[in-house]
Formats: sequence, structure tokens, C-alpha cells
Amino acid sequence: MKKILLEDDEIPKEWYNILPDLPEPLPPPLHPATNEPVKPEDLEPIFPKELIKQEMSDERFIRIPDEVREIYAIWRPTPLIRAERLEKALKTPARIYFKYEGVSPPGSHKPNTAVAQAYYNMKEGVERLTTETGAGQWGSALCFATKLFDLKCTVFMVRISYEQKPYRRVMMETWGGEVVPSPSDRTEFGRKILKEHPDTPGSLGIAISEAIESAASDDKTKYSLGSVLNHVLLHQTVIGLETKKQLEKVDEKADILIGCVGGGSNFAGLCFPFVKDSEKDGSKIIAVEPTACPTLTKGDYRYDFGDTAGLTPLLKMYTLGHDFTPPPIHAGGLRYHGDAPALCMLVKHGIIEARAVDQVSTFNAGLLFAKTEGIIPAPETTHAIRVAIDEALKAKEANEERVIVFNFSGHGLLDLQAYDDFMNGKLKGT
Amino acid sequence: MKKILLEDDEIPKEWYNILPDLPEPLPPPLHPATNEPVKPEDLEPIFPKELIKQEMSDERFIRIPDEVREIYAIWRPTPLIRAERLEKALKTPARIYFKYEGVSPPGSHKPNTAVAQAYYNMKEGVERLTTETGAGQWGSALCFATKLFDLKCTVFMVRISYEQKPYRRVMMETWGGEVVPSPSDRTEFGRKILKEHPDTPGSLGIAISEAIESAASDDKTKYSLGSVLNHVLLHQTVIGLETKKQLEKVDEKADILIGCVGGGSNFAGLCFPFVKDSEKDGSKIIAVEPTACPTLTKGDYRYDFGDTAGLTPLLKMYTLGHDFTPPPIHAGGLRYHGDAPALCMLVKHGIIEARAVDQVSTFNAGLLFAKTEGIIPAPETTHAIRVAIDEALKAKEANEERVIVFNFSGHGLLDLQAYDDFMNGKLKGT
Repeated sequence: MKKILLEDDEIPKEWYNILPDLPEPLPPPLHPATNEPVKPEDLEPIFPKELIKQEMSDERFIRIPDEVREIYAIWRPTPLIRAERLEKALKTPARIYFKYEGVSPPGSHKPNTAVAQAYYNMKEGVERLTTETGAGQWGSALCFATKLFDLKCTVFMVRISYEQKPYRRVMMETWGGEVVPSPSDRTEFGRKILKEHPDTPGSLGIAISEAIESAASDDKTKYSLGSVLNHVLLHQTVIGLETKKQLEKVDEKADILIGCVGGGSNFAGLCFPFVKDSEKDGSKIIAVEPTACPTLTKGDYRYDFGDTAGLTPLLKMYTLGHDFTPPPIHAGGLRYHGDAPALCMLVKHGIIEARAVDQVSTFNAGLLFAKTEGIIPAPETTHAIRVAIDEALKAKEANEERVIVFNFSGHGLLDLQAYDDFMNGKLKGT
Repeated sequence: MKKILLEDDEIPKEWYNILPDLPEPLPPPLHPATNEPVKPEDLEPIFPKELIKQEMSDERFIRIPDEVREIYAIWRPTPLIRAERLEKALKTPARIYFKYEGVSPPGSHKPNTAVAQAYYNMKEGVERLTTETGAGQWGSALCFATKLFDLKCTVFMVRISYEQKPYRRVMMETWGGEVVPSPSDRTEFGRKILKEHPDTPGSLGIAISEAIESAASDDKTKYSLGSVLNHVLLHQTVIGLETKKQLEKVDEKADILIGCVGGGSNFAGLCFPFVKDSEKDGSKIIAVEPTACPTLTKGDYRYDFGDTAGLTPLLKMYTLGHDFTPPPIHAGGLRYHGDAPALCMLVKHGIIEARAVDQVSTFNAGLLFAKTEGIIPAPETTHAIRVAIDEALKAKEANEERVIVFNFSGHGLLDLQAYDDFMNGKLKGT
């Protein structure tokens, strides 16, 4: 059996909230003006109440609304697939499985939280969501989700991506989204940046600042974030919860779990439901980031802003500094200066291992995957594949039948330019 | 239950061959030089023996090799999905189902035959396949399939597509294919065309001629065609055979079956296994083509060449003439002057209905589908969706609970430029 499938009615009925299971309480987000812990009401101008509640919840399981599960059923449960042809190419005794999140209409794991966020905003009477997007995965997921709940959506898209990735823009517009290159003249912060640096390519930090400013200035508009925050990671745990059931179905137990990390959401989605098991049974969980943006492996663990302008609450996390500008690698989704606080704490405590890999090595892994398993991975996903292959080769050296599971966060059909550059020797090592 | 799934071991074990069930024997293909019926050995320079045998077989069911089923399992069985949100938007009592072939790694139904063809060629010691591609769906499917069986692949890509659709080229190259803009200087015919028309945008007919010439001139190279021929349609019947099982699972019976037609392969794949039933129970089967290339609705039923140069055998089919150049609509896969002979005969006998729809109306349908069901269809697929919607609206008028099933032949993630043009009012009516 190559694909391990679940039926629609096996879509999880609850998300898993890791907060009560962390080794110590998560340090609270601090208000950017007062440096005092943020109160729920401080967040109400930009988030709906239910998401604020989830952000701070200490309940281990949170019910998934039926309306959300119905939309999930468009593409969920996603298949867990045994990568037998990759195993053969590597001549490894390891069994490699990947959770294929690329089957969602926008092509990545991002809709898992976009759908939930759109739903709760709709329930509370919100009419429009704003957000930022870099490579475009998150923006397209939110346009997809808002359309299904009949909300409007404005996406501030990092200018250089807006210009270089027209297909992503068209995708968002096809789902009825409005896409604005950032920095823009829509916000005070955007106008300021444009005045100082008229030729700026933009950055995710700037786009976040614009999206928040735009949401805060209108009653019926709220803001939506695609990673980092607790409620975002919470919604992604459907990935790991399904994977658990699927592994049980074929009587397998993961020895090694792997995900790539930008802000941490796809990683947490697969791995958080396995953390307690791993502490008991010694299985290994590996977070993979690019050497070009080595937040977990080289950042400091301290309070920092989530955006460039300093509008967001301060979060205790590994950070490269909120003004850090990573080099323009193709894995745009992994170019973020910070990481999810819950994930950072697990790394700090040594419960999760962090590893950085360079761009050329990840594309080599991605190309081998495409040529053996037939599926072309997104540049972000190739980071997880790189480490899955490395671990499979270690298993070969040790001659051990290890079970390796990684999250295939998205396909690369809208990132083919990156493969063209790679095959033509245009990519740099980091 | 929104998605009706089958397990890996429910992938059909046999393809369905419609030849013995046609209302009269299929008129034989004629040799282009002698006008005599083609003998199997005439085809051996370009096709492997097993495919020639299948092309002329009168066995109703043909076993699918295990090695082919194993590759099918990368993405098959494909889901049959109830389009409930589309139904609601249309306020129709009809139940609309679509067979989602877009889940294959190249994103369309084309690998169903590409994998089978690559397999039989590999078994007979062939080292390289040549083919042509227009929009790129077929070329990418064959590059995907040949890579999995370790064959080389050379794709002659219509020059204008080569230039306008770099992503499709990169996709083929990612799977190790060689992509040559056609007309090229690789073949005598290509050089002749280039000399006469140095600025030609190319055409599918020219590319076919080049691919055949290139295969015929080398012992270890054979040619592969993505539609029209009997063995190609045969391999696609896994679509309809799975759909039958899936409908049975939810106790449904199709009243109307719909597919778009370029050469006829995705249409035949879904519909041929239902033809005998439809003759008994009066269910309707509709073949949809673009008004810009109205082969079935306005063509003549006569012998004609499959390519521009007149290298292929003559086939008895509906044709607009082998020198017909359709206007450059976005549904590149539907721009072919002829159609599969088996399909044409069923239309000729009134067993299948043919209908032509114009481009703007198809994109309207595609956009409504994307906004309700969340999946962005390929321009070809929007033709089937257009008629599915039309039929659902007729059911509403008649207040009847009709069951409508259409083939979702491919997603549109590599065709987003077409949506951009449509949304910006740049598309013409035909």
C-alpha cells in the first residue's frame, strides 16, 4: 500500500493545543508601547475574540467547527505516502513517509489555518481580512478561504514577489482577492518607506506592518497571520493528528519526524502532536531552516517584534533581529527573522533539534525527489526532503530500519523558475 | 460525504477496450503512401509491438501490468468529488460530481496513458521517446512517465508555447526531459518549414511531424502520442472504471456524463465505460469542444491525416482539414483539427452528443467553479464545467434531481495567465 488514506469522516474533530504540555509556561507577548503583558482586549482591534481565546487557551483539545471540517473536506484528509522509489534510489533500509499537504487547492498546508481564521472572523461579523504575503503561499490560501466564507481579502504582497511571481497574484485574484504591492501608498508606514526608499523591493516585515495598520484603522476589517502565533500552529495540528492515525493503520511508529521552518506552522502542524511521544520513546524531531536565515541555529532567544515597524507585540523567541534582511533565496516562505514562540521553547529545552541546510543542497534533494517520486516540491519543502534524505543515508550507514516521516508542505508548480535557475547553475550555496 | 475515495488496491486491474462494442467495425487507418489499410508491421518503426496490438485489439478488457498500477498508485485512484457548493450557488436540484484528475503530479489525466506507453516501450528495449506538445500538458506527462521508467524523452514543443509557457518547459526539464521548440532544425520537415516561414509560431501538426520523423530515423527511439489513437483512449478508461465504482459506493447513477474534447482522450477515459449503459438507460453523454475548433459539430466525417506534413496514417474521423489552424484560444489542448476515430463514430451514430461552447462562457464557468469549489480548472476543463453548469440549470428549470458527472481533466495552476487575461477583459468570444 503506497498511499495511506483516511475517509472524510476521519478528519480530526479537535485541534491539539500544545500550550498546556510545554515544559514551562510560555512567556507572555508584551505590548509594544508599555512592555507589559498583552491583555486579550489589546488584540481585539486586529483579531476576532475566538482566535484571541485560542491564542491563550490552556485546553489541550479544541473542537473544530463543522463548517470548517466541511471546507477541510475539499482536500483533507491528505494522503500519507510511502516514498518507496526514493528509498530504492538511496538504497536505504529506512522507510520514508511524507504527509502530502500539496493536495490543497492553493497547493500548501496554509489553508488549514486560513479556513479556520476566515470562519471565526465571519462568525463575528468581520467583512474584510488583510494580510501580508511573501512568496505568495499564505496570501493565496487566505484568498481561497475568505472567498469560501464570502469575506473580502486584501493582501499586501512584498513588491519584489509581486513583480517576479505574477502567477501567485493571478491565483489570489482568481479567488476574488485584492493584491497590493508593498510598500504601498495605502498606509502611513508604506508611504514613509516609499518616501525614504522609493526603489525598495519590500520585505515581509514591512508588509506585515502595512496589513496591521490597514486592519486597525477600520472596524469591519481584521488582520490575519499565516504563522508564528499559537492559534495558527493549533489549526495546523490536523496534519500531525491525521498522520498519527495513518501510521497506526499500517502499524508503523515514527523514529524521526521532520519539517521545514519559516515561522513554524507546517513544522508544528506535523510535529507537535508527536512531542509527548518523542519524550517517552526517544524518537527524534528535527526543524530544518535555511543557512541563509538561521533563526533557530544562530539567533538569540529573547523578546523581539514580529514585524519591521515594531507594531506587533514583542514575542519571546529565537530571532535574528526584526530588522534582519535575509538574502533572496527561493524558499521565500523561510525568510523570516523570528519563529513561533512555542517551537522556540521546545528547541531551547532540547526537545526538538534544529538544523540549517544550504540552498543548493536542498534543490539537489528536491530534484532527486521529483525524479523518483514524481512530485515537484516547493523550495521550502525541499529543506525537509534534504534532511529526510540525510537521515535515510545515516540509517543505511547504521544498517537500521528507521521510520522517517516528513511534512511535504507544498508543491512547487508555482516555483518552477527556481528549478530553472538551479538547473542552469544560477543558485548560490546559501 | 464530499469526496468518494477508493483504496490503492481498487485501481482497476484491466482497461476497457471499446472497439468490440462499437456499432460497426472501425474503418482501418490507411497508409499515407498507398491508401491501403495499415498493417501492424507498418507501425513498428514508431510504436512498440504491444501498443500496436492494443491499437487493433478486439478484446474487451486488457490487463494492466502491475508495474503500471504501481506508478498509477502515486496519484490514483483519483477522488470523485460532489460539487455541493457549486450546486448551492446554482440553486439546482441536480447533484454534480467531478472526477478530479488534477491530482496527478503533472496536474492532468495525461499520465494515465504516458505511464503505460513508457512501460511498454521500456519492456521492448526502447531508450528514448519523442513526442509533441502544445500547451504542455502532454509533454510534461510523458517526461514524468519516462523518468519513472528511466527512458530519455525529447519533446517538440510548439514554438509559441515554448516562448509563452516557460513554466511548462521547466517542468519537463525538472523530470529530465529535453524540450525543443518546433519547428526546429533537428528534422528535415522542421528545416523546410523554417526556411519557408522563419517566423512561424509553429503548430501541433508540425510538431507531430517532427517527432515522428525523429523517432523513425533511429532504431532505439520511438514515438508517443497523447490522444486520438485507440490505445491512448484505452489507457484512459481507468478514469471511467473508477468513477463507476465510486458512483456505486454512494448508490448514484449518472444521468449526464460530460467531458471536453481535444483529441478525445480524457473524454473517452470517463465516458467510454458508460456507453453501453447509456444505450440501455437513456443517460446522456456530451462531448464539449470550443467553437474556435468545432471538429465534431462542424467538421466533415472522412479520412484525413493526423499531422500537417501528412506522415501519419489516414484516419476516418471528423476533421476540419489537416491544414486547419485554429485561432489561439487558451485551451491549447483543444486546438486539434481531428478527433479520435472511435469517438467520432459514436457521434456519427448519435450515441454521443457533441456541443461547442465559446471561450468567454467557459472562463465564466471556470471562475464560478474556482470561487465555489476552490479548485482552479485548466482552460480545457472549463469547457466541461460550462456544460455541467448549463445542464444543472436545465435540471433546475425542469425541477429534476439529475445526476451530472464531468471529468475534471486538469488544474489550471500553470495556466493562470489565461485567467489574468480573462479578468482583464482581454479574451475574445470564440
